[in-house]
Amino acid sequence: MHPHEMNALVDALVERVQRALTGEPGRSSDAAFQWQYGAGWNANTTFVPTELIHAAGRDDHRIARKIDHTMLKPEVTRSDLVQLCEEAAKYRFYSVCVNSSNVPLCVELLQGTGVLTICVVGFPLGASLPQVKAFEAREAIKLGAKEIDTVINIGALKSGDFETVLADLVMTVEASKPYPLKVILETSKLTDEEKIAGCVLSREAGAAFVKTSTGFGGGGATIEDVRLMKRVVGAAGLKVKASGGVRNNADAWAMVEAGADRLGASSSVEVVTGGQGAAGY
Amino acid sequence: MHPHEMNALVDALVERVQRALTGEPGRSSDAAFQWQYGAGWNANTTFVPTELIHAAGRDDHRIARKIDHTMLKPEVTRSDLVQLCEEAAKYRFYSVCVNSSNVPLCVELLQGTGVLTICVVGFPLGASLPQVKAFEAREAIKLGAKEIDTVINIGALKSGDFETVLADLVMTVEASKPYPLKVILETSKLTDEEKIAGCVLSREAGAAFVKTSTGFGGGGATIEDVRLMKRVVGAAGLKVKASGGVRNNADAWAMVEAGADRLGASSSVEVVTGGQGAAGY
Repeated sequence: MHPHEMNALVDALVERVQRALTGEPGRSSDAAFQWQYGAGWNANTTFVPTELIHAAGRDDHRIARKIDHTMLKPEVTRSDLVQLCEEAAKYRFYSVCVNSSNVPLCVELLQGTGVLTICVVGFPLGASLPQVKAFEAREAIKLGAKEIDTVINIGALKSGDFETVLADLVMTVEASKPYPLKVILETSKLTDEEKIAGCVLSREAGAAFVKTSTGFGGGGATIEDVRLMKRVVGAAGLKVKASGGVRNNADAWAMVEAGADRLGASSSVEVVTGGQGAAGY
Repeated sequence: MHPHEMNALVDALVERVQRALTGEPGRSSDAAFQWQYGAGWNANTTFVPTELIHAAGRDDHRIARKIDHTMLKPEVTRSDLVQLCEEAAKYRFYSVCVNSSNVPLCVELLQGTGVLTICVVGFPLGASLPQVKAFEAREAIKLGAKEIDTVINIGALKSGDFETVLADLVMTVEASKPYPLKVILETSKLTDEEKIAGCVLSREAGAAFVKTSTGFGGGGATIEDVRLMKRVVGAAGLKVKASGGVRNNADAWAMVEAGADRLGASSSVEVVTGGQGAAGY
């Protein structure tokens, strides 16, 4: 996509979402995006996985399989990581999510458990060079990582430099193949327009997920952001990961009900056992 | 720590780290690690650059040449970076210190000014793979960076895994050649013993500087930490960079008087013009 086309697309999208959010009637008919009014979406619409909630009830085994059990603080020791992996195996979380230097240990510890090791790259600032993010993804995958979570170039996004943002994401998508790439938008630092642009650019780059937060950026997932992101990328088959601030069972279910397909949490054990986790990631 | 305990603690830790790295049995038992009183160093010892303070007085042009004018927040835009470089040229700061994706722009903007571009790598968590930190350093240098600031593997340091810490640092020292490498210890997350071990390992790896803080770790430089770091590495010719929380002229001079050879600050203009900077890095 050419930059001017992308600008136009994002502009159209911004306008349309703003209209949708404010309930104003649409003015344009952007066939390129085929935004359908009248489909009933509004700020109260939720994306309930009915097979979970209505049929199975609040099945915390099933929610465990949506959790990336996360430990990204720089001061974590080997024994902290051993505990993380033991918990992940015990509660059958989907994965553990760790920094790249901790991938080899987690891959080894999780062998045979069915729990994946996920690696963050260019984390948490998203401000490293595209080739550095891509290199980190390749190295992590060589060492056994099965998904990659990266951070969008926030500064370029806020500068309106969509070409730079897209090129950066494309390199990491390619480097992560055949595994899924998640793109963290760091929603707490973005306007709604920037969140939407970030979603569109992630979709264009071939990412598998958009994700709300690093946990280091001064804010976490909100219901509103998860809804917005699902609205923008859901139809294209991308998933949404809610991360940051998910500290108990109610938080987790609220995010799933808002449209989250995956949850990032360091308080995962509390989520599935009914406790309350502490702040921190 | 009581100041009188410092010399013996440093000596004991140096020996302990060296023993751990060489695998040789120690000459002394762990009793030697316990603090000995009586040596001459105390908390009032300063490392005053007398030629600056006594001869020249508080010369804020000279202090400007000690400042790495720093902008590391992920949301900085192109225009923020332009302003950073304009300020650095105007006030003749030593350098600008930026994330790797911003190196090309800063190198271009600072051509002919005499102000260097410094790049952070593996920043701010220090938890990426050694080869990723080294790759980022090489790429940044290819693009014109003239110094590299990295973050020690904090988790490995806290796990007592000195071999991992050292191997990681050596790779980045090598990748940064012929330019100086600074090692950020993130002192707010370390015990005094860990700070000393981090200094010793940085020295053994061939780093040019030890540096206090990333600005993202919940704490900044303290007088006590700068003194301690200078005490451990000063005699070996390494320098100390105080970073995080340096927001005005008094802060800056206090750090220099405590032994800092370089200052990292985002409030650099306030430092040299008598203002007061805001928190944030």
